[in-house]
Amino acid sequence: MVQLDRAIIENIVRQIVLARSSSALAVDGLPKPAVADGKPNLVVSISARHCHLTVEHVEVLFGPGAKLIPEKPLYQDGFYAAEQTVMVVGPRRRMLPTVRVLGPTRSASQVELAFTDAISLGIDAPVRHSGNIKGTPGCVLVGPKGVVELSEGVIRAARHVHMNDRDAERYGVKNGDLMRLRIEAPHCTVVMEDLLVRADATSKLEVHIDTDEGNACNLDGATKVELLKQDGGCKCKH
Amino acid sequence: MVQLDRAIIENIVRQIVLARSSSALAVDGLPKPAVADGKPNLVVSISARHCHLTVEHVEVLFGPGAKLIPEKPLYQDGFYAAEQTVMVVGPRRRMLPTVRVLGPTRSASQVELAFTDAISLGIDAPVRHSGNIKGTPGCVLVGPKGVVELSEGVIRAARHVHMNDRDAERYGVKNGDLMRLRIEAPHCTVVMEDLLVRADATSKLEVHIDTDEGNACNLDGATKVELLKQDGGCKCKH
Repeated sequence: MVQLDRAIIENIVRQIVLARSSSALAVDGLPKPAVADGKPNLVVSISARHCHLTVEHVEVLFGPGAKLIPEKPLYQDGFYAAEQTVMVVGPRRRMLPTVRVLGPTRSASQVELAFTDAISLGIDAPVRHSGNIKGTPGCVLVGPKGVVELSEGVIRAARHVHMNDRDAERYGVKNGDLMRLRIEAPHCTVVMEDLLVRADATSKLEVHIDTDEGNACNLDGATKVELLKQDGGCKCKH
Repeated sequence: MVQLDRAIIENIVRQIVLARSSSALAVDGLPKPAVADGKPNLVVSISARHCHLTVEHVEVLFGPGAKLIPEKPLYQDGFYAAEQTVMVVGPRRRMLPTVRVLGPTRSASQVELAFTDAISLGIDAPVRHSGNIKGTPGCVLVGPKGVVELSEGVIRAARHVHMNDRDAERYGVKNGDLMRLRIEAPHCTVVMEDLLVRADATSKLEVHIDTDEGNACNLDGATKVELLKQDGGCKCKH
């Protein structure tokens, strides 16, 4: 289990940067400038399993007065992977030993898993947008200094795309709309529908998918990535 | 690792039967009659990691004179999950302890993994169609009676659809064509392109995807499944 963890955890802030143009494809570990040739660069990030914690839960898990310690910045300004990890324990004491905590803290603690992770824990995680955790399964978090029992908060995060209002205007969409992400890769091209637009004044253009989705389409081997309106340029529903 | 294995192995012959019509959805563990209302039923099966073995390798791994013992029939007539499992060992001695053997035996041994599995083993498995293993990575197979070193044969099996020639005619496709599979599920609808048609005189209509693909689209929670021509009914390329 430790080895799988490590391999997946390594992805946590890995970002695949792909130019919007099919002819200008760039893939590396570093974000590109947010705008090139007047078009925003499209960053597709794989979010490996992780959790968000409240200030109170940070103190229970890591000790009184403890704070999250930023280790790696995420692509979105102000967000980071923390040094801290927790053990996530499911029913029947199955567990994931090292689940990364992302910062900053939030008003409710939440655990985001791919289905592969949820199956290994024995948790039937529903697909929800981040923050919408009412009625979702709980779990137990174990830190070096204490234990938190979450009554709810375990989800598979629904795929979504962050962007600022100028990007939204360029794509002809608005906050709350759905888009499609088409990832072209040899033998395993995938179109992901139901991609929720999260537009605000300042976010960078970035799609968030999980490890199952990234593996299904072989994102690392992608030759082209397109962000499309849900029904744009297409008479059928695909 | 053992728990994840068990959960995934349980999927190996799990079949999701979904009527072609969106209004008549049937999901259970048992194959439906191959034709209902004049239309073939569409079976979408998740192939968990597994391997195929030669007669010679069966004897090395399980002892002189050993044969594969059918445990569960697969949906395609004549194919089965065997009682036997092997340990698959990758570089740096990472391993998957119980990988199911599927029968009957073949002319070349082959290990089919999802990317999640391949990452956990540290093997960079290419996406290949079954049988096309030239130049692919190898691994070590460990059985109760012996060890086999494969110089090649570890792949991620490319998605495909089995069908007989009558089904192919109904869909307007032929052996070797590509189709699309659209799986509609709340918040995670996916269209998988590049689905290779494997048509012959006798096969049953059945799509094979792997666990990553099944998890990406939440196949268990699917509300509609459609098998579509690669460019059929659609002016765009999606």
